Amino acid sequence: MRIAPLALLLAAAAAPPGSQAVVDAAPASAWRPLDQANTLYMRVNGGTVVIELAPALAPRHVANIKALVAARAFDASAVTRVQDNYVAQWGLPEGRSTGPAARTLPLEAERPAAGLAIAPLPYPDSYAAGTGFADGFPVARDGAGRAWGAHCYASVGVGRDAAPDSGSGAELFAVIGHAPRHLDRNYAVVGRVVSGIERLSALPRGTEALGFYKTPAEHVPITQVRLGSELPPDERLNLEVMRTDSPSFAAYVAARADRTRDGFLVGMNGVDVCNIRVPQRVRP
Amino acid sequence: MRIAPLALLLAAAAAPPGSQAVVDAAPASAWRPLDQANTLYMRVNGGTVVIELAPALAPRHVANIKALVAARAFDASAVTRVQDNYVAQWGLPEGRSTGPAARTLPLEAERPAAGLAIAPLPYPDSYAAGTGFADGFPVARDGAGRAWGAHCYASVGVGRDAAPDSGSGAELFAVIGHAPRHLDRNYAVVGRVVSGIERLSALPRGTEALGFYKTPAEHVPITQVRLGSELPPDERLNLEVMRTDSPSFAAYVAARADRTRDGFLVGMNGVDVCNIRVPQRVRP
Repeated sequence: MRIAPLALLLAAAAAPPGSQAVVDAAPASAWRPLDQANTLYMRVNGGTVVIELAPALAPRHVANIKALVAARAFDASAVTRVQDNYVAQWGLPEGRSTGPAARTLPLEAERPAAGLAIAPLPYPDSYAAGTGFADGFPVARDGAGRAWGAHCYASVGVGRDAAPDSGSGAELFAVIGHAPRHLDRNYAVVGRVVSGIERLSALPRGTEALGFYKTPAEHVPITQVRLGSELPPDERLNLEVMRTDSPSFAAYVAARADRTRDGFLVGMNGVDVCNIRVPQRVRP
Repeated sequence: MRIAPLALLLAAAAAPPGSQAVVDAAPASAWRPLDQANTLYMRVNGGTVVIELAPALAPRHVANIKALVAARAFDASAVTRVQDNYVAQWGLPEGRSTGPAARTLPLEAERPAAGLAIAPLPYPDSYAAGTGFADGFPVARDGAGRAWGAHCYASVGVGRDAAPDSGSGAELFAVIGHAPRHLDRNYAVVGRVVSGIERLSALPRGTEALGFYKTPAEHVPITQVRLGSELPPDERLNLEVMRTDSPSFAAYVAARADRTRDGFLVGMNGVDVCNIRVPQRVRP
C-alpha cells in the first residue's frame, strides 16, 4: 500500500503526453519562422487573411502569384464565390492588367515524390497510398512516385477552367468545408491559410450555381495583397510553425490519433491528414 | 476506319455514369420520404434549419429531444457557440423548464453493429475498420461488433460536460468544418442537417475560448423548434432522400470515388464517408 502513490506517480510520468502538452514542451528546434518571402497578406473586408505559399508543390504558380502581387493585380479585387462546405474563391476583375505575369500555366497538380521531404502519417487514407506533411503542408502520394498537395480545410488552390492548363493563380480558392480530396491531383495546391480563414469561411454563401454571388454588390472587397517581406516588420504576423519533420510533431500526431491522452473516453487509433492542424505559435 | 464512330458510341454507352447522371436516373424505388415524425424544423435567425433525427443511433437521446420539443423547451433558445472548422452549438438557457424530459442520460455514442443495416463503403478509413451509411446517416464500425454515428459535416451531436452521462439533448451541436472524427464513440450523434446548414456554418465565429460568443447580445436567436409531423403539410420540406441501401446509391458512391466519370482529369479511386452527401430531391 505504501508504494502506491509512487507507482502512480511513475505511471503518470510515463504516460504519453496530450496534444497541448506536446506543443507546450516543444523545444526551439521544433519551430521554424513563417517564410515571409512566401507569405501573402490579403486584406479582405477590413481584416487580414494570411496565406503561406508552398513553392515546393507548385513552383511556377507560386512564382506567378508573386508576380501578380508585384504588379498589384490583386489590389481592388474581390471574393466572388462562397459555396457552403466547399470553397471561397477570389480573383481579378475582367480586364485587369497582370503586368508581366503569365495568364495561363501548365497544371501543377502533382509532382515527383522524390525530393519532397514527406513526414508520413502511419494511418490509412481513403484516397491515397500515403499521406503526410511536407514542411507544414498536408500532402499525399501514390505508390508510383507521385505526390501532391492535399485539399484540406484552409488549403489554397488554383481555380481554372475545364482545360488543365487554363489556371495562372489569378483566380484562387480556399477550402472552407470538409476536405474535398477529390480535387487532389486535379487542381494545383499553392499554399494554406495560416491566419484568418474565418474571414472567408463565415462569409455569406452565394446563391447562384456553385455558390457564386448573384450581384457585384455582394462581392467581398479585397483591397490589398502583399508579401510579408514587403511589409514593415511590425505589420507581419510574428508566427512560428511547428516543423513537421520534428520529433515534437510526431508526438503531436500520435496524441491527435489517441485522444484519450487529452481526456477523451475512447481513442480512435487513427487520424486523417486533414484533421491535423499544424501547431503554430507567436514567436517568443 | 468506318467502324470507329460506332465503336466510340458503344464505348460511351458502356461508360459508367457520372454522379449527377446516377441521381437523375434513380428510380422511384431508390428514394424514401424524409421521416417527418423524426425531423426537426428549427427557426434560426429568421431562417429554417431542418434536421433529420437518427433514432437507430441514439434512441433515448432522440426520444428526449422530441420530449423537449413537445415541452417547447427549445423555443426562445439560442446558438451560443460557433467555433471555426468545428461546431455550431445551441441549447436551452439556464433554468429553462424541460417538462418531463430527462436532464441527463447515459451516453449513446455507440451501439451494437448487429441490427443496424450498414451499406458499407469499399474504401479504407483513417479511423475505423469500416464505414458506410445506415438509412442515410454516415456511420463507422470496429471489428468487434460495435457501430456509431460518424461526425461528418452537418452531423448533429449531443453536447455534454466531462462526465459521459451528462448530456440529454438539451445542448446540441452541428459540425461546420472538416469532419472531427475524433469525436466518434465519444459523443452521441443524433441526426444530420438536411437543409439550412449554411444558416449555422456562416454565422460569425465566437471570440471566447472554444468559440463561445462573448456576450449574450451575440447569441443567435432560435425562436421555435417543431417536428415536421406537427407542422401543416405546406410548411414541411417536401424532400426525398436517396435510400443508401439502393443500387442507385452504390452507383453514386462509385461515381464519387472516380470523378473521371464527372469529367475530372484524375480519379482518386476512393472517397471517405464524410465526403459523400446523400442525394436528396424535392418529391416529384
